Amino acid sequence: MSAVLQNTNDIEQYMKTLGEQARQASHLMAQLEPEARNNALLRIAEIIDSHRETIKSENARDMQQGKVDGVSEAMLDRLLLNDFRIDAMIEGLQQVSTLDDPVGEISDMRYRPTGIQVGKMRVPLGVIGIIYESRPNVTIDAAALCLKSGNASILRGGKEAIHSNQAIYQCIQQGLIAVDLPQFAVQVVNTIDRSAVGMMLNMPESIDVIIPRGGKSLIERIANESSIPVIKHLDGVCHVYIDDKADIEKAFKIAINAKTRRYGVCNAMETLLVAKDIAEVVLPEIEKELLNRGVELRGCERTQKVCHSELVSASEEDWYTEYVAAILSIKIVDDMEQAISHINHYGSQHTDAIVTEDFTRARQFMRAVDASSVMVNASTAFADGFEYGLGAEIGISTDKLHARGPVGLEGLTSQKYIVFGDGHIRS
Amino acid sequence: MSAVLQNTNDIEQYMKTLGEQARQASHLMAQLEPEARNNALLRIAEIIDSHRETIKSENARDMQQGKVDGVSEAMLDRLLLNDFRIDAMIEGLQQVSTLDDPVGEISDMRYRPTGIQVGKMRVPLGVIGIIYESRPNVTIDAAALCLKSGNASILRGGKEAIHSNQAIYQCIQQGLIAVDLPQFAVQVVNTIDRSAVGMMLNMPESIDVIIPRGGKSLIERIANESSIPVIKHLDGVCHVYIDDKADIEKAFKIAINAKTRRYGVCNAMETLLVAKDIAEVVLPEIEKELLNRGVELRGCERTQKVCHSELVSASEEDWYTEYVAAILSIKIVDDMEQAISHINHYGSQHTDAIVTEDFTRARQFMRAVDASSVMVNASTAFADGFEYGLGAEIGISTDKLHARGPVGLEGLTSQKYIVFGDGHIRS
Repeated sequence: MSAVLQNTNDIEQYMKTLGEQARQASHLMAQLEPEARNNALLRIAEIIDSHRETIKSENARDMQQGKVDGVSEAMLDRLLLNDFRIDAMIEGLQQVSTLDDPVGEISDMRYRPTGIQVGKMRVPLGVIGIIYESRPNVTIDAAALCLKSGNASILRGGKEAIHSNQAIYQCIQQGLIAVDLPQFAVQVVNTIDRSAVGMMLNMPESIDVIIPRGGKSLIERIANESSIPVIKHLDGVCHVYIDDKADIEKAFKIAINAKTRRYGVCNAMETLLVAKDIAEVVLPEIEKELLNRGVELRGCERTQKVCHSELVSASEEDWYTEYVAAILSIKIVDDMEQAISHINHYGSQHTDAIVTEDFTRARQFMRAVDASSVMVNASTAFADGFEYGLGAEIGISTDKLHARGPVGLEGLTSQKYIVFGDGHIRS
Repeated sequence: MSAVLQNTNDIEQYMKTLGEQARQASHLMAQLEPEARNNALLRIAEIIDSHRETIKSENARDMQQGKVDGVSEAMLDRLLLNDFRIDAMIEGLQQVSTLDDPVGEISDMRYRPTGIQVGKMRVPLGVIGIIYESRPNVTIDAAALCLKSGNASILRGGKEAIHSNQAIYQCIQQGLIAVDLPQFAVQVVNTIDRSAVGMMLNMPESIDVIIPRGGKSLIERIANESSIPVIKHLDGVCHVYIDDKADIEKAFKIAINAKTRRYGVCNAMETLLVAKDIAEVVLPEIEKELLNRGVELRGCERTQKVCHSELVSASEEDWYTEYVAAILSIKIVDDMEQAISHINHYGSQHTDAIVTEDFTRARQFMRAVDASSVMVNASTAFADGFEYGLGAEIGISTDKLHARGPVGLEGLTSQKYIVFGDGHIRS
């Protein structure tokens, strides 16, 4: 294992070299056949399988250092690589290799009145920079999706996982070399110095897009500092609105599922909106079930009147909050218009659902709600790349440009125009 | 005409108000039927027609001030609004109203194994900020495309066109009000203070994307300063590569057209690459024709030998240069691989073409060249939204994210996921 760089001048030169190598590799990657990229994925899987012991022993170094540094139990758990997790990494590589290849797809070819033929070809973005925190399995997931989509990548994991990440990186490099892919198609930054991140964010000549994965503060900092476009995911303040034309049973099932399936995920419901004309029928039952499951409820004044238990009063702050916990704010609204206004004002443009049997309202809600996923009679928990059939997910984007919602392989590609002629010139 | 703001505190409050008004208008815009937006375009056209004299007299104030300020003749020409140009504005509005509506299009709806149905809906981006220079007709073009695509817009024109822009804006506002569209769906910044631009670039809560139109230095400054995503167009260092399998006649026609059709445009050829095995056959004729047309030629060493006249030697700098003038750099390359390397190294990812009759090489060139438009046997001059059939063009993007190449109405929209269920919950 090579020494970890410490000196800032060295780091600057080092990052510059990584960037140049990535750019060069990206040009070669863009010309490879799908089979070559799939072979690389499968070969890397084999090499990881045969290097389990090295990976685990390097991971043990990280774990030990983490304990010395007083890293939290939760973070240590995320850091741990055992056989089960290594199996998952291997399966992930194999699964990505079976996905349809997004690169080179030609679409919309049409003849124009001038006689030229114009269409689009899907192409890799080029070089993708991924900045993530403690989970070393992200190294493999991210490398696999970038490889599959024909991109070169520069990966920068958390400092507490440096040895694990480098051990995994050795396997990736061996795999790339074994199948004659550009050696620098994937590079994992080998320094724990934070200045490396700042440098990555300001190498537009070498990196085409930055994807941060981690907590909100990391992502906000990266978005602010980066001179390179960032595909990012901020809050998930997801809403379910129960319309007065809702089917009571569907409303109940969806509300419970959206809140309680998992509390720590971005697609969990954080605010329940209920139309006033149906509140007395539907709310007490939902209240009872959520309280049974240990969810803390915070309500508006009208909600407090309708609910049977003593509810904490929801503050203005609550409507903006992604609890990522067993807490739910509830608001009774006059009608769908008020629900839509609330969502567009307080929401985070992640995922919002309506429960209604009314066709016209469903159509209006779909149009008017400004979110990356808008659902009718389905739980917000479905907002996920695998559930949507993308086959893989590098993250969920709450941006509007380029990729919105779950980002799969297609989100790691772009489209260029292609034009065919027969010696055509423009008059 | 309202007074132009001068005080920075006032400007800050003013810009904030514009932003809030735009955001509010964007939510209403997202829910409008296509007919409402088309009616607005047509009504604005009528109002402009009936306010010609006001527009021309306000334009005369700008022209007069420009002369006092010693503005260049070229810029004064761009600034001028006469009946011919007002007619063009009116026709532009009418033409945009006839385009297909991009908003609300639902695509890719598919059933998933869980029973939910997942697809995408095309939606406006929200609020678009456009920053441009002296041409006041951009005010109408930009407003029309943003309106048609369901976006609210904040337009900031050049200070030398302030009165013309405000006169046009009065017509737009009257038109919006007359057909009951949100009054603030279009807003034209009414201050010449430069600080307004800096503020616009840092209102991510109010503006979703910035589109700068103007010279390279303006665009670079905006891209650097903006905390909002920017759709931009930098250089157009376009190449034509004449392969040794090229049809000589096509090569000649395309090279002449790509260079001489217009010199001041971004899709003009700036560097001609010629395979060494065909150079002696094709280059002297092209040389002769270009010299006849007054084009200055700069060549590599091999080119200097092949050409009949005394050519200036092309420097390293030349290969990077967008002349936007009657100048061409010429390089003889060994083969297509060397041409591709040259293009990917020195090019600006705008538009590059190959002339060849070889099918396999055409395929390889298309894959390997990293540009927003890649052409086979067609002149780079075709790189244009109208030629591509987009029906309109807000600009050409040399970015890879979101929109690449000519940007029409679709580039001003995004896609959100929509999910239909029947009470579905995730297990």
